[in-house]
Amino acid sequence: MLGLLNSEKRGRPDITHLTLLEILSTPLNKEGRLRLYVHTVNDYVITVDERTKLPRNYDRFVGLIERVFLDGKVPPEGKPLLSMEKMGITQLLESIQPTKTVAFSSVGDPATIQEVCRNLAKESRPTVVVGGFAHGHFSRRTLDSADTVVSIYHKPLDAWVVASRIVYEYEVESSK
Amino acid sequence: MLGLLNSEKRGRPDITHLTLLEILSTPLNKEGRLRLYVHTVNDYVITVDERTKLPRNYDRFVGLIERVFLDGKVPPEGKPLLSMEKMGITQLLESIQPTKTVAFSSVGDPATIQEVCRNLAKESRPTVVVGGFAHGHFSRRTLDSADTVVSIYHKPLDAWVVASRIVYEYEVESSK
Repeated sequence: MLGLLNSEKRGRPDITHLTLLEILSTPLNKEGRLRLYVHTVNDYVITVDERTKLPRNYDRFVGLIERVFLDGKVPPEGKPLLSMEKMGITQLLESIQPTKTVAFSSVGDPATIQEVCRNLAKESRPTVVVGGFAHGHFSRRTLDSADTVVSIYHKPLDAWVVASRIVYEYEVESSK
Repeated sequence: MLGLLNSEKRGRPDITHLTLLEILSTPLNKEGRLRLYVHTVNDYVITVDERTKLPRNYDRFVGLIERVFLDGKVPPEGKPLLSMEKMGITQLLESIQPTKTVAFSSVGDPATIQEVCRNLAKESRPTVVVGGFAHGHFSRRTLDSADTVVSIYHKPLDAWVVASRIVYEYEVESSK
């Protein structure tokens, strides 16, 4: 599965931090079955290697991301754990070449995570887009890039809750 | 459901922080269907009110917990969001009066989260115990307090991953 955290709105790296910590610790990621990208404000994409052990301390996480912005990657030598490119979300999805893209949003069509993940598990390159916003929704550009936009709860949910549920249910459905 | 984070081993409040952030944001908690306790080293129990909005910044979380240790509760007036008592895990479980207690540990009997939560959903006061340790396992005392000890993965998992999966699957099973 290909996971994508879309944090277009400014200034909430705390949401990105918690969501990455959650996802990186999952069996799906530890088994090398997940590719993880963060799309930031101003169209930068950070590719997160599955072996990345993020600092749990938020201030140290921010310092790490600042280094990625300065140097383009971390660590500077060898295969990078975090690397950054200037890239819009449409361009990123073109490079991923998903067989199916599902975006999760409280304004999407109601669906259970089970239904969504059952369908994703049938795909060879399923991709999900989770919004890392404090307020607001995906841009029109992001919505247009997705095949479907689904809502898994009748109220907004934090990105890390959505992401952890998708990864878990995808593990269950893809092992059937 | 009654959730219990057992962090007997010293010095990993970062694990507690991430796990509480994960749990407090779930629909189960937001709908008032979860009671949450943290059992700490030296037998203190922090009761976490469902309305609690924890600071996402780790240093501010530590500051908040220090205030709870100093004052016994936060905020000082009105119904507390966080309150602390001197209490061992056996005593805590006696006060909760669970109809069934399941502890999650990589040394437990293998089971899927679905199986475990299907059984918990049949109980009137199901209680789960998740270890918030960096290394090591539950004490004998904790293990003896549980009806069953289960392992949901063949390797250790971070507490926040275990907790988020339990809460999610309990929501699914208890809505059937």
